[in-house]
Amino acid sequence: MLYHLIPSNDSDDTSIKWTLVKITVLVGGVGGARFLLGARELFGRTPFPDDPAPGDNTVTAIVNVGDDAWMHGVRICPDLDSCMYTLGGGIDPERGWGRAGETWHAKEELAAYGADPDWFGLGDRDLATHLIRTQMLDAGFALSDVTAALCRRWDPGVRLLPVTNDRHETHVVVAAPEGRPLPSGETAPDLAGGSDGEIAKIAIHFQEWWVRYRAQIPTYGFAQVGSDETAPAPGVLEAIAEADLILFAPSNPVVSIGAVTSVPGVRAALRSAAAPVVGISPIIADRPLRGMADECLSAIGVPTTAQAVGEHYGARSGNGLLDGWLIAPQDTAEIPGVAVASAPLLMSDPQATAQMIIDAGDLVGVDVRPTRR
Amino acid sequence: MLYHLIPSNDSDDTSIKWTLVKITVLVGGVGGARFLLGARELFGRTPFPDDPAPGDNTVTAIVNVGDDAWMHGVRICPDLDSCMYTLGGGIDPERGWGRAGETWHAKEELAAYGADPDWFGLGDRDLATHLIRTQMLDAGFALSDVTAALCRRWDPGVRLLPVTNDRHETHVVVAAPEGRPLPSGETAPDLAGGSDGEIAKIAIHFQEWWVRYRAQIPTYGFAQVGSDETAPAPGVLEAIAEADLILFAPSNPVVSIGAVTSVPGVRAALRSAAAPVVGISPIIADRPLRGMADECLSAIGVPTTAQAVGEHYGARSGNGLLDGWLIAPQDTAEIPGVAVASAPLLMSDPQATAQMIIDAGDLVGVDVRPTRR
Repeated sequence: MLYHLIPSNDSDDTSIKWTLVKITVLVGGVGGARFLLGARELFGRTPFPDDPAPGDNTVTAIVNVGDDAWMHGVRICPDLDSCMYTLGGGIDPERGWGRAGETWHAKEELAAYGADPDWFGLGDRDLATHLIRTQMLDAGFALSDVTAALCRRWDPGVRLLPVTNDRHETHVVVAAPEGRPLPSGETAPDLAGGSDGEIAKIAIHFQEWWVRYRAQIPTYGFAQVGSDETAPAPGVLEAIAEADLILFAPSNPVVSIGAVTSVPGVRAALRSAAAPVVGISPIIADRPLRGMADECLSAIGVPTTAQAVGEHYGARSGNGLLDGWLIAPQDTAEIPGVAVASAPLLMSDPQATAQMIIDAGDLVGVDVRPTRR
Repeated sequence: MLYHLIPSNDSDDTSIKWTLVKITVLVGGVGGARFLLGARELFGRTPFPDDPAPGDNTVTAIVNVGDDAWMHGVRICPDLDSCMYTLGGGIDPERGWGRAGETWHAKEELAAYGADPDWFGLGDRDLATHLIRTQMLDAGFALSDVTAALCRRWDPGVRLLPVTNDRHETHVVVAAPEGRPLPSGETAPDLAGGSDGEIAKIAIHFQEWWVRYRAQIPTYGFAQVGSDETAPAPGVLEAIAEADLILFAPSNPVVSIGAVTSVPGVRAALRSAAAPVVGISPIIADRPLRGMADECLSAIGVPTTAQAVGEHYGARSGNGLLDGWLIAPQDTAEIPGVAVASAPLLMSDPQATAQMIIDAGDLVGVDVRPTRR
């Protein structure tokens, strides 16, 4: 299987076009957003929410919604917003999430009222996004419609699709922190104090585990909580089926990519897609690229190595998801049925990330180099 | 009918107490809040939301909710918040409304999204109040419960009761501004351009009339919009029935006091109350104390004079609401059945306002002077 993608016309236009190049990327938040900057650099801007013109390259991001939560009555979609703000130029470049020029006055006041949760970083500028989203959801619009409406302002240059319009939140099974109310009506004892009994386990929202506890409590697993009828959002299965190349961004393999592929229908679509699927390793030299992927991996018994994460995704020729696995030069991996190569994986700028995508394509015989006639 | 309110004990306590002095004040927003500062100065702090102790003075404010509105999905209660912030020390002293140290970043962002309405001053700190209120209302709590919960933080020292827990919004019948969609499906013509046809009238929310149009469009009247079963909130009728003195703050007689007395049951309770009812004129030298009361009065055909507003309230001995009417020294009024006196009415500080309340009591034989034994 070899794709060589050729320019669509012989005009003198200096912009680079291929015939109907469709790239579909599974992404989480901060790292995923940065990966998309590289895809946009390589393939040019995909109009969104307007439809791509015939002959335009199309980059479609299928975005994790497992981190989504209700906070203070508004709907928060951290990964969609990280993608939207990063691609739209509104991100805080220091923090890597939330809005540039942010203030925290509403949050201060919520804390002064004693309102829970007091550990979530709800910025004043960010709040406007959540207010509009909440109003639209309340009015009956789907999250994918809301995302398109918000992107009318941000003009991300990438199609941003929530993987599902249904509630599909990642919850985390943990040892109940001391004093926490238990389903039994009792409160959890101090574990450090040496409880003799069985450890009381509760499930908390991923955001609470991640932001409040910094993943530093005993953790036993993850579960998606939401609708019994969670289905892919409109366009998701088509973007997988019609792609020329499918990429897993170097996002968290458990709570980002894993939460995306756990939406019923997505895994099957990936396994039957015509295009090759290449994962980009989020592990460099046995350490996660960013965030706390090691805490997530260890909770499900997967070592923080490129080898183990590649095996966790598995080969499409077996019962996994990958045709290719792009790892960092410092790492090694050997996975039967999966083409493995190494390349620099630091997304230091969009050009470097674009080169990663070229390397990922090369691994499965898809040439996505910008060539001019 | 003469009340002489005597100290409740002969202790050496320097604080001033009377036996069960109950003062009930009908208020709007900014002016009403300032009036309550004077009542608190005179009668001491009324615990709220805790219950007053036996022997404590009680000042109960019955607060207008006609200005309340949904904006960007959150419930705004301008008059309740003005009272709460003013009494709780959180008000912006320059503007007279909203929070001190306020920023407007969420509002800027909402405007950047093109979200309507773009003319409402939604501050970042203020938003926290609205988020908590909206969450509590969504959870099924009544507005009076929400107000009590918010006052747990602000400790206003006055009982703040919304006049009703039901929707009771003031809408304004106006000439449709140019380009405005009409019920017919057409858009309103430019009136200034000289339309030959009949003027198209529409009803808009009071906030839009007041904030967006500064009341500077042709106006034909006011209507309360809300539930068919609007009833006084718990405690409102009791506060009227059990009061020793009932006061109308110098608030807008049409859209503040008028909106309060239009809640079914309130007018009848005032007319049958044992205590005398004294209005404090919001007109000084034929001009409104603040705000745009003249626009509201002229829309209902009432001149902006102390005489006309007093007549508009009317005598309880007739079919009106007043036993006394306290006007400014510059004004005159003669209303059959209503005791009229003049006193300085500028609420320049709480002490000056306290003196106004003493003068209002004197007018109907209720001595509320702080006397010590």
